Amino acid sequence: MSSMVQIKQADEMQAWALARRLDGARIGLVPTMGYLHAGHLSLVAEARKRADVVVVSIFVNPVQFGPNEDFEKYPRDEARDLEQCERAGASAVFFPSVATMYAPDASVFVTEERLSAGLCGARRPGHFRGVCTVVAKLFNLAQPHVAVFGQKDYQQAAIIRRMVRDLNFPIEIVVAPIVREPDGLAMSSRNVYLSADERQRALGLSRALQAAAACVEQGGAPAADVRARMVEVIEAHALQLDYAEIVDAESLEPVAEARRGNVALVAAQCGRTRLIDNQIL
Amino acid sequence: MSSMVQIKQADEMQAWALARRLDGARIGLVPTMGYLHAGHLSLVAEARKRADVVVVSIFVNPVQFGPNEDFEKYPRDEARDLEQCERAGASAVFFPSVATMYAPDASVFVTEERLSAGLCGARRPGHFRGVCTVVAKLFNLAQPHVAVFGQKDYQQAAIIRRMVRDLNFPIEIVVAPIVREPDGLAMSSRNVYLSADERQRALGLSRALQAAAACVEQGGAPAADVRARMVEVIEAHALQLDYAEIVDAESLEPVAEARRGNVALVAAQCGRTRLIDNQIL
Repeated sequence: MSSMVQIKQADEMQAWALARRLDGARIGLVPTMGYLHAGHLSLVAEARKRADVVVVSIFVNPVQFGPNEDFEKYPRDEARDLEQCERAGASAVFFPSVATMYAPDASVFVTEERLSAGLCGARRPGHFRGVCTVVAKLFNLAQPHVAVFGQKDYQQAAIIRRMVRDLNFPIEIVVAPIVREPDGLAMSSRNVYLSADERQRALGLSRALQAAAACVEQGGAPAADVRARMVEVIEAHALQLDYAEIVDAESLEPVAEARRGNVALVAAQCGRTRLIDNQIL
Repeated sequence: MSSMVQIKQADEMQAWALARRLDGARIGLVPTMGYLHAGHLSLVAEARKRADVVVVSIFVNPVQFGPNEDFEKYPRDEARDLEQCERAGASAVFFPSVATMYAPDASVFVTEERLSAGLCGARRPGHFRGVCTVVAKLFNLAQPHVAVFGQKDYQQAAIIRRMVRDLNFPIEIVVAPIVREPDGLAMSSRNVYLSADERQRALGLSRALQAAAACVEQGGAPAADVRARMVEVIEAHALQLDYAEIVDAESLEPVAEARRGNVALVAAQCGRTRLIDNQIL
């Protein structure tokens, strides 16, 4: 017998959340694009530790996809997602339609202008505008006290933290560690796109990060050298490099000297699939 | 004996508001830039009708002023404002410093991309981005159930309504009528800038709107003719026209045929002071 609530309409989501708030419940939110894997479920588990009720949102947000990106073919499996949310102990699943989330003449957007300048922001124009906008909407709809994001999208998490600070959302942001396959590949809904050969080559990302971490194990190293090592590993796996960078963990500015506490981030094309990964050094 | 709370810090404002929410109180917010006049006080009265506790925010928001505008010289009188808020029955006054509201590296902004294209938005680049951003922040800090704005800033009110819709703020927006001096001049904190001569010439704005209203009293009229009549009145008062337009009340798009229910809006320079006014026809 399930007590998990399924909500499709934005106004119902908000009414449910406001009622929970009036009950005095602490609300946790896990925003996802669905096609859930163990990484997502770890976020739900984290939210359960920190809240009385947990809302999982499942929404493939068109506004964060570029015109040549994979919005249409992004993997979806609503039935399986619902089952997984239920097993993970979610209190409510919010899976709105695009029409519920965006009026045809929607014209208000949330933008971040510094942290989103580089990395994925530079390669995916408008991506973080779409992310900030939909997350602001989900915050207002689900009224969370705490929201849990995955470190896999390191830049996204940094930008959301910044949005919460700059727009004064009364929300605690928790970033949960990357969940990896046994061989090191970071879990991603997009991994389903990979052929067997690509799946092997995809290990180049996590291995590049391991190589970067090894570079700073004994202390600092010139970032250019660490970056060159990452590029070497990426290319040895026949991946097409998008970026490999060492940045400050807060400002996301590239550093000259790579040190522990910096973040190494990589993005690469593996066949037709764009993959990202990162590691705090 | 006053029970009105004075709050200067953003986090205190939010804690106060969240505590009121947990008490079950309905919160009303009146965002202002201070130097309060009867127009502002009518907003407080309106908020009191619709809420259990009323927060008046007083903040001259630098982000909504252009580099050549009057941020520095905008009139301020904190002591008088506090007294007026108290007499008007406000529960709390929030008068933060700029440093409390904006981190030095603030980088997240809320933009509206349609309704803000024309009218004041076209003449004051970045103005409504500043307005949307600060109002989103005030919404998150004061946690209102209802927020009251003045019709004097018609375009602003339309944009705030749009922001509430598009970002799903759980807030009712009320727009209260323009309060006018006995001779018709719309009340504005900026009227204090006017010399005696300018004060007389400033009547050109409300008279232009009256002329526009007279044009449609017997039915529709070509908007170009109505606009020409408004320009005539503005210029007869030796004002420098900024704009005079007849627009749809919702979309703010210029109309070809002026009809009842449309909105006439004027902006003009009176000496060094920029004045605006509007009237629903």
